[in-house]
Order: sequence, then C-alpha cells, then structure tokens
Amino acid sequence: MKDESQVKITLPDGSERYYPKGITAHGIALSISEGLARNVIAAKVNNEVWDPTREITQDSLVKLLTWNDEDGKATFWHSSAHLLAEALEALYPGVKFGTGPSLEKGFYYDVDLGDKSLSQDDFPKIEAKMLELARQKNEYIRKPISKADAIQYFTEKGDEYKLELIDGLEDGSITLYEQGNFTDLCRGPHIPNTGIIKAVKLTNIGGAYWRNKQENKMLTRIYGITFPKQKELEEYLTLMEEAKKRDHRRLGKELELFAFSEKVGQGLPLWLPKGAMIRERLESFLKKAQSRAGYLPVVTPHIGSKDLYVTSGHWDKYGKDSFQPIKTPNIGEEYLLKPMNCPHHCEIYKTSPRSYKDLPLRFAEFGTVYRYEQSGELHGLTRVRGFTQDDAHIFCRPDQVKEEFIRVIDLVLYVFKSLGFEDYSAQISLRDPNDKQKYIGRDEDWERAESAIIEAAAERNLSTVTELGEAAFYGPKLDFMVRDALGRKWQLGTIQVDYQLPQRFNLEYTGSDNQKHRPVMIHRAPFGSMERFIAILIENTAGQFPLWLSPDQIAILPISEKFAEYAEDVFFQLQDHDIRGFVDHRDEKIGRKIRDAEVTKVPFMLVVGEKEMAEGKLSVRRKGEGDLGSMTVAEFTNYFKKEASIS
Amino acid sequence: MKDESQVKITLPDGSERYYPKGITAHGIALSISEGLARNVIAAKVNNEVWDPTREITQDSLVKLLTWNDEDGKATFWHSSAHLLAEALEALYPGVKFGTGPSLEKGFYYDVDLGDKSLSQDDFPKIEAKMLELARQKNEYIRKPISKADAIQYFTEKGDEYKLELIDGLEDGSITLYEQGNFTDLCRGPHIPNTGIIKAVKLTNIGGAYWRNKQENKMLTRIYGITFPKQKELEEYLTLMEEAKKRDHRRLGKELELFAFSEKVGQGLPLWLPKGAMIRERLESFLKKAQSRAGYLPVVTPHIGSKDLYVTSGHWDKYGKDSFQPIKTPNIGEEYLLKPMNCPHHCEIYKTSPRSYKDLPLRFAEFGTVYRYEQSGELHGLTRVRGFTQDDAHIFCRPDQVKEEFIRVIDLVLYVFKSLGFEDYSAQISLRDPNDKQKYIGRDEDWERAESAIIEAAAERNLSTVTELGEAAFYGPKLDFMVRDALGRKWQLGTIQVDYQLPQRFNLEYTGSDNQKHRPVMIHRAPFGSMERFIAILIENTAGQFPLWLSPDQIAILPISEKFAEYAEDVFFQLQDHDIRGFVDHRDEKIGRKIRDAEVTKVPFMLVVGEKEMAEGKLSVRRKGEGDLGSMTVAEFTNYFKKEASIS
Repeated sequence: MKDESQVKITLPDGSERYYPKGITAHGIALSISEGLARNVIAAKVNNEVWDPTREITQDSLVKLLTWNDEDGKATFWHSSAHLLAEALEALYPGVKFGTGPSLEKGFYYDVDLGDKSLSQDDFPKIEAKMLELARQKNEYIRKPISKADAIQYFTEKGDEYKLELIDGLEDGSITLYEQGNFTDLCRGPHIPNTGIIKAVKLTNIGGAYWRNKQENKMLTRIYGITFPKQKELEEYLTLMEEAKKRDHRRLGKELELFAFSEKVGQGLPLWLPKGAMIRERLESFLKKAQSRAGYLPVVTPHIGSKDLYVTSGHWDKYGKDSFQPIKTPNIGEEYLLKPMNCPHHCEIYKTSPRSYKDLPLRFAEFGTVYRYEQSGELHGLTRVRGFTQDDAHIFCRPDQVKEEFIRVIDLVLYVFKSLGFEDYSAQISLRDPNDKQKYIGRDEDWERAESAIIEAAAERNLSTVTELGEAAFYGPKLDFMVRDALGRKWQLGTIQVDYQLPQRFNLEYTGSDNQKHRPVMIHRAPFGSMERFIAILIENTAGQFPLWLSPDQIAILPISEKFAEYAEDVFFQLQDHDIRGFVDHRDEKIGRKIRDAEVTKVPFMLVVGEKEMAEGKLSVRRKGEGDLGSMTVAEFTNYFKKEASIS
Repeated sequence: MKDESQVKITLPDGSERYYPKGITAHGIALSISEGLARNVIAAKVNNEVWDPTREITQDSLVKLLTWNDEDGKATFWHSSAHLLAEALEALYPGVKFGTGPSLEKGFYYDVDLGDKSLSQDDFPKIEAKMLELARQKNEYIRKPISKADAIQYFTEKGDEYKLELIDGLEDGSITLYEQGNFTDLCRGPHIPNTGIIKAVKLTNIGGAYWRNKQENKMLTRIYGITFPKQKELEEYLTLMEEAKKRDHRRLGKELELFAFSEKVGQGLPLWLPKGAMIRERLESFLKKAQSRAGYLPVVTPHIGSKDLYVTSGHWDKYGKDSFQPIKTPNIGEEYLLKPMNCPHHCEIYKTSPRSYKDLPLRFAEFGTVYRYEQSGELHGLTRVRGFTQDDAHIFCRPDQVKEEFIRVIDLVLYVFKSLGFEDYSAQISLRDPNDKQKYIGRDEDWERAESAIIEAAAERNLSTVTELGEAAFYGPKLDFMVRDALGRKWQLGTIQVDYQLPQRFNLEYTGSDNQKHRPVMIHRAPFGSMERFIAILIENTAGQFPLWLSPDQIAILPISEKFAEYAEDVFFQLQDHDIRGFVDHRDEKIGRKIRDAEVTKVPFMLVVGEKEMAEGKLSVRRKGEGDLGSMTVAEFTNYFKKEASIS
C-alpha cells in the first residue's frame, strides 16, 4: 500500500514499486543497481521519452532506457547535437542556430554562420572542442519558461530562427535546456550530462534550406555521430568503410548494372544489360514461385484516367504533390502516371461477376509505378521516381484472411531464404484500441483480420513485435525487416489488409447465401520494389551474387585465337543448358583474362587451350576457390546445375 | 520509228509500242486482245492512275489495270461510291454529298439527308437501285471545268459541301464526273461504265463529322462493297462471316484474354490472367531466341524528360499531337510518356565509351510505349494507346549492316515459322534515286546499306518487292507481311536502318584507326507489338493457340470429389514440369466438365476416377482428337513435351 507521498511505478515486466513523489528515472535505476544507474540515459514514462532526471509525480509506467534502446540512442544523439552547438558557439561567436535533431544514425545541426564558412577541414578543431566540453560533465538542465521570457531571451541573443520557432509554440509548453555555457530552445529529453559522450566524429557538411523551403535562406548542415565508447566509434567507422565499398551506387557503376542519364531524367534508372539480367532472373524466380502459389499474372498500363484515381482517393490525397496530369490534344482527357497498381487490379476484378467459389483471386504483376520525389531525396536505387513493384493483390472472403496470410508469409520466407537473408523479423501493426473510430471497415472484420495476422505469424514462428496504433486507417499489416551482412536493418516485404479500396470501387462477390458481399483486399510485395531490393542485394553480397543470379555465370577464356572456335562451340553447348556468359576473344594473355573475369566477379572461368581442345574438356576455375581441375562439358554442366540450384 | 502523229507507249515488261496520239488505255488493251480490253478498268500512266478512256497524248509508261490490281480495285470501288450516290439521289431527292472514297475493302459515301434518316433496313432498296442503274451501263464521263462554272453548278444544285471542297481547289485542275443522271466533283479516275459492277452489298451505316472535325455537322456514312461477279461477293461474305467469328475483340472477351475499362481509359488494354500468360510465353520465347542471337536485355523507364525528345526530334515533329508533357509540382520539370524506346537506348549506348571491337551492340527491351490516337481510330488490340514493342536496337559499324540484316531476317523467320505463319513476303523500301538530297546520311552509307539489305534478302531467299522512294528519310528498311488463315495480309516485323538518331545523339565509337566514327543504328521488331501480334494470332488460330502458348494447357477433371486429392497431386507433379492448367473441382457431371473445357479450348483434358487413381494413371483426351487412352503421369509428361516443343 502506498501513502499520499508516494507514486506507484510499474516496470515493463509488470512489477510494481513505490517511491517518494518526485523520484526520477535515475533514482529508480539507482534503487535497482549502481551499474544500471550509470547506464540509464533516458526513460519512457507513460509512453513519452523523458530526461532521466525529471521528477515523476504521478503513478506511471516506466521503462528505463540505455544506449541499447533505439530511444536511448536517439536521446544520446540529440544531446550530442546540443554539444556540437555549444562547441560551435565557443569557436564561432555569433553563430545562429536552426534545428538539431537526431537521425537514424547520429545527428545534425543546421547553423547560420553569417559571413563565415566551414569545411571538413574544420572538423578536427570542432571535434576537439566537443570532447573538451564533454569532459566537463556539464548537466543538461531542463528549464520551463514562459513564451514572453523565451522571446526576450532569444531577442537579446539575436537568433531569429529560434524566435520563428517560438512563434509556433504554445505558452506553457516551452522549455529551454542548458548545458555548460549553452542554452537552447528544446522540448528535450536529454541525457544526464555531457560526460557520457566519449567519442565524437563529424561526418559530413552540406546545405539545407531553413524549414526545408526553397524560398528561405540556405543554412549549413553539419552531420556527426557520437558514442559512449571510443571502441564503438572505431567499429562504426570500419563498418562505414565497408559500407562504402559495398555502396550499390558505386558497385552498380563498376559492375555495369545500371546508370542514370540527365537527358532521361533524375531518379529514372536505366538498367544496363547485366542489371537487366539480374532483374529478369529475380522476376522469373518469383513468377515461378507465385504460379505455384496460385497467383494469376495480369498486365496493366502505366497510366490511368484521372477518374480512376479520384475513385481510389489517390487524387485527393496526393494529386497536388505528384507528377501532374497528362492532357490530350484538343479533347480534355486527363491521365495520370500510375503511382500504384491496385486501382488497375480492382478494375480487373470488376471485369467479371465473382462468386464466393472464385475466391481467393490473386492477381500478380511486376508493375512499374512512378512517384514524384524531390530531387534532393533521390538516392541511387533506394529512392527513385520510377520503380517496379513485385506487386499482387489478393481478393478474398473475410474468412480466408488467415489462410492467405500464412501463404504469403511462406512465400516471403521462401524468397528471403533463397536470397540469403536468414536474419529477419516482422512488425505487426494493429489498430489503436482506444481510437477505433478513425479506421475504416467493420469492427468484426478488423478483429478477425488482426487475430488472423497474429495467429498466422505465430503459426509460422515469426519473430515479431506488435505495435498498437500503427495500422493504416484502411487496415492492419505485417512488415518484414531483414538484417544484412553488415548488420544493417532494411525494411523489405509487406503484407497489408485493405478495407478501403473494395468499398471505393464497390467490389462484390455473390456469397453462398446468394447475397452480395464485399471482398477483403490484401496488398503484398515480398521484394517491395525491384530497384530497392536489388540495391540491398548488391550491398549484402558486395556484388558477388548467388550463382543463379549472376549476370555472367561463366567466362570462357581461350588461351589463344587458335581455340576461339572450340570456345564458341562450348559456349553454344552451355547456352543450351541456360548457362549464361561470354567468350573472352580479346588478344590478351590468359593471366590477364582470368584477372579481369575475377574483378567483374564472374563465378566460373573456363580456360580452353591445346590440351582441353584435344580432350574435349574445360579447365574450370571458380572465383574464390581457384582451380577445380578439368571437366567435360557434360561434367561441368552437371556440377554447375547442382551449384546453381536455388536453395 | 514513230511519226509526229504517234505516241510511244512503254509497257511494264519493257516492250514499246506506237499508237496514234489520243489513244486510250482501253485502245491499247484492245490492240492486244478483246478479252484484255473487257477486263481493263483503269491504267497507270506515268505512275498516275487514269481512266482507261482518257486520251494519251505523250510518250508514256503505261500499266493496264484490272480487278486483280490493288489500284484497279480502288478505282472500281471509287466508281461504286458514285453509283451509290446516284442511287441515293434517285431515292432521296435533295440529298447532299460530302466525300465518297474507296477503302482497303469497299467504299463509303458521307451524305447529308436533311431531315430524313436511314437505317440498315433501307439497304435492300438502295442496293436494288444501284444494280438497276448499273445495268444501264452508263459511262463515267470526265469533264474538266473552270472553277467559276463548278461553283455555279453546285450553287444551283444547292450542295454546300461540294462548294466548300471547290473552295480549296485550283482553277484549271477541277474535273466533274458524270454517269447517268449523276454528276460529282471528282478528280477521278473511274472505270469505263457502271455495267462492270455486278454485285453490290451495303455493309454498315454510321456517323462522321464533315471533314473529320467535331465542330462540323455529323453526316451519315454509308459503307458498301461491290464486285465484278456475284460469286466473289458471296465468297467475300462467307469470309466476313468467318472473320467475325475470329474477331479478336470477340474471342478476347469469350476466352478472357483482355478487357478494357472506361475508368482506366480508352485504348489501354488490361491483360487478364489468360492473356497475360500468352504474353509471358511469347516474351520468354523471343527472349530465349534473342539471347542466343547475341541480344542484351535492357530496361528503361516509361517516361523521359522533354529534352530527350527535343534531341531525338520527336518533340518538334509529333509533340503537339501527342500526350502532353507531365509537369512536376513547383519546379518546372517536364516529362513525356515515351512514344518509342530508341532515345532511351541511345542514352544507354552513351553510358560507356565504345570501341569498334564492342560492336555490334544489340539492346533488346519489351518496351511499353504510349501514343495518342483519336478515340475514333481505336480498334481492339490492333489500334491502341499503349502497347509493348518487342523492340531492339542494333548499334553496328557500316560494314556490319549486311551481316546484321541476315541475322535479323533469320530471327524473324524463326518467329514466323514457330507461330504458324508460313506464308510471308517482304518489301524492301529504298531511296528515290532521283531525289537523293531529301535523305539524311552519307551517300556511300546509303548505297552500302541498300545493297546490304537487297543481298541479305536474296541470300535468305525472301520473296520481296522493292519500292523506290519508300524509304524513310533517315534510312532504308525491310517490312514483313504475313498471310493469315483467311488469306488476309498483315504487316508484321520490320527492320529499319537509321542514320539520324546516331547523329542527333552524337553517338560514336573509336575505330581501329583510333578515330571517332558514327555507328549505324538498326531498329527491329519481329512481332511489331505484343498487342497487335496477339490480335493477329487470335484471328489466325481462331483462339486455338499452339500448345506451348495455350493459357491453360491441361484441365484435370476429377469424376467426383473423391478424386480431388489425387487430382491435386497429379496437378502438382505436372506443374513441376512447367505444364500449366487447373483442376476442375466443380460439383458437375464429367460430361459437362469435358464440354466446358472444350469450349474454352483447353488442349488436354485429364480425367481421373476410381480406375485412374488405383492405377496411378490419367485418362487423356485431346481437344479435336478425343480419347488418347490412359497414361501414367510420366508417360503423359513425355508425350506432352514432345507435342509442346516449338517447331
């Protein structure tokens, strides 16, 4: 039993503890162990991230956060942005500050240096100053302030950016944070003190418009990352170095997989032959798997009349920020580049009356869609303006949702395993149970679909996290994450229930009761998009693709021109077995030919010379393994087929 | 030697004859044989089609035309349009006339009936009147007339349409044609008299804006066809009946191959699962053939910046009449839906420096392009607004053109033969040798390319016609025609040399002389477009596709639910061998299941019941052949594979 002067604290494991009113997360940690207290850098109090030093005056659900929590890292980096600002103010008096948030990895601060300018050459000096200030172990102090006082403070300081920010804030909700000699307008939270920051690295510098608007002033954006241990920074930098080598933009160029052309347009990839071969093989692989799983192929145009997107709701929601309508000469027709395939597939559903016996119907299309992205947001193949989704839409009865989810999960896991992504997890996104009215669709359907997803994931032993309130307004969903060879996480396939489009398109089927019913629609894409997936595949494999996906699987290397004809003959025989590659007819030494084939990551080098021709054989070398001895074409073909089979 | 009163007439075989000045084509025919004279209905005089009764007063190249010549038929049908007009004027006094040209098959006349209206019910009466007037054997009399007199004539007659036409004509070039009681403004030519027209059929009635402009009045368009023999009309009507049954629009619907949706937009086909399967198989088939022929796949976006098409020349030439540019929000970027793949492929060529050793480079893409067509011109899959070309562009050295043509011809003929088009011919289109300056590219390159095409066609024993002056301004070409099961001719594949785009895109390669040279570009598409080709394939096969192309190759028909599991097991085994189809699980009698499979043209029906399950077999029925006895799955698979192999 608690008395009036106490608060009840519920920890994530469900245990309850009583503390004096005004206890802090740090105090709670200390009551458990000193080691824990040293590591707690923030806390989640009733689902809001707080300073560990902030007083708790009500009964609360408390989760202590350390560096190992995402929210802990975010707080650490946000505090590091303040440390950067403090260092800048010390080194460049008069500097003005925009905003300085944390990022997925690290943080940035946008600053106005007046007539001064900065470059990467200044980074060591700033890093040194940051570390010097960190060693002072200055506390981050939270200071609620009235709007009037805040305005006065920043007017005196002469920082118009902060004043503009204050203008949008409500009196009573404003706080400042102070550490050492630096005070910032900030809603927090922050770590206890700067001393926790042990390693600092500024990583990049660039320009960014104030408040992301082109009509505003361009500020200087300084990126950085920090760690609680020097060793972690070193590991991070090694990882970055490796990531740079694997950067799909760099490998895409080196291996001649794709290119961009200014004349064609930004964010519109041109797939060069070797990249196109990878795409084709991935598509064939998935088409085959989908055909077995009962999917039906469809093909739809890349445009649709504006009316189609008015019906789908897309026009109202995104029309203004998308590629604008295509008009026709004279007559006032209007078309849109398709940003998604679902409306077209709904129209295909409507080409025939459907009965409950016809369902589920699974329409699959490698559909290329176009979405307008700001040019600054484009990035290699991971953020483009045109991309091909491995899309499918399943139209089913409400009682079929679970079975369909299980089937899609099986397909997605088959795809991941076949492509070497063994480390994956999934997030189940459900309704906010306290705010049901903001979702479309019948309550009973939601309940059914949500338990169907949970049960399906459980039956397939998926490692999942469940997030309440993360469902789209039109349905719950399941998203897959994979971890790549560098330990980085990528969001891949998604499975999503949709109650909205069947309603907007007035889709129906006749039930066994002879009445009209509305089908459920499930969107799903195991790869997500070919572009993004291939980018991840390039980075995960460092360009050394699985044999079955390699653009060139073999290089036949004649020792001299004398063996060119024999080489061609062998090539033709191998092509008969769908083995792809080329004959290197260049007038080069065999050592050079082998080296060049290694560099372009060709898995098999087949050397043919006097002896091989006489015996009707090949000398087989495998990249990374070296000489495998000589084989007849039939022997090699058998060996190859075993090696190239998809796991 | 001819004297002053004679003209020298050169016939197509090169023979020369002398006739009195003022001789007519009919007179020339008569001098050869009376039979010929009876059959001559027009003549080509110095490459212009003339009345056979028009006097020849200069030395001329003369080709006598009969019903068997395309130009002869066109003249016959144009004269038939006048006969229709004469009949209409007799039956509906006061009718006003627009234009009445010949068509590929038959003719039409656009008329203004004032407050009267016509329907197909009126056709017998009009046909009877036409035949009655034809029997009068009225001559078609050519009457040159001054512009003033022509205006006076049609003003008195009160025909404002003819007056509008006269307005655009030059005085001195105007002629009237008169037959019986009917006089028309017409540049001719015409057949000798109406008596040659022995069989008449009006085929359709519709509306058409005067001069094809929507702001003008809607006239009544009456379509008809005529023949010199009743028997030919009957044959034609039988053919039309058969063509109607094979109409790809009708079969496309019946067999669920494709559909259109108003919401998606006119002329934008939605490929339903069975149609998409045919597309996929055709694509795989051609991809495999192309891979062996040394083509490299590429994939490019469906839009390109406007600048790309300014460079290609497309914007200047077609921009105004095409789908209009796609703008981006705020920033003034402009993109166009791609109307062709070549500019994108030129940009791919430019992604690397190229050497003479790299050539030929053959970039292949099933590229979907979009072209704006007036909605009135759209027709099923043969005239659409979005279609997928089986496109490729070969970049080669000038000395490689012949070799490349031979390779493309081989590929095209392989495609035709594999798809059952055994009756084909080709047209070689060359420069006009008397007007060389209107073509782009160096004279020596043209000469080389033209002889390369001629030699390549000869080496492959192609049946060709050569047309001078039919080349595009940017290069000579070879077009293939196939004849379908109904004897109709379709233009299919094309191979085309292009000297223009390499210049406009400034494409280069380094020659063995270490100098920069310009590559030659060859466009080629064996199918032309997937849409058009599949339309022709549907009509040629009446929907009974070759086994390897059939959407469903097998239907497994369990006699009752007891055998459903066995049926599924068999299906799974067959899928392993890439045999496609379905299990008919409906609760229907086996006779009904067989009938339904026959109607949807499934090639193999595999019946499974008590006996089959006990023995691990299938009872195999083949459409059109009936019972083939019982086979094990392995036996059937072997049999199937032999039957399904592409010839």
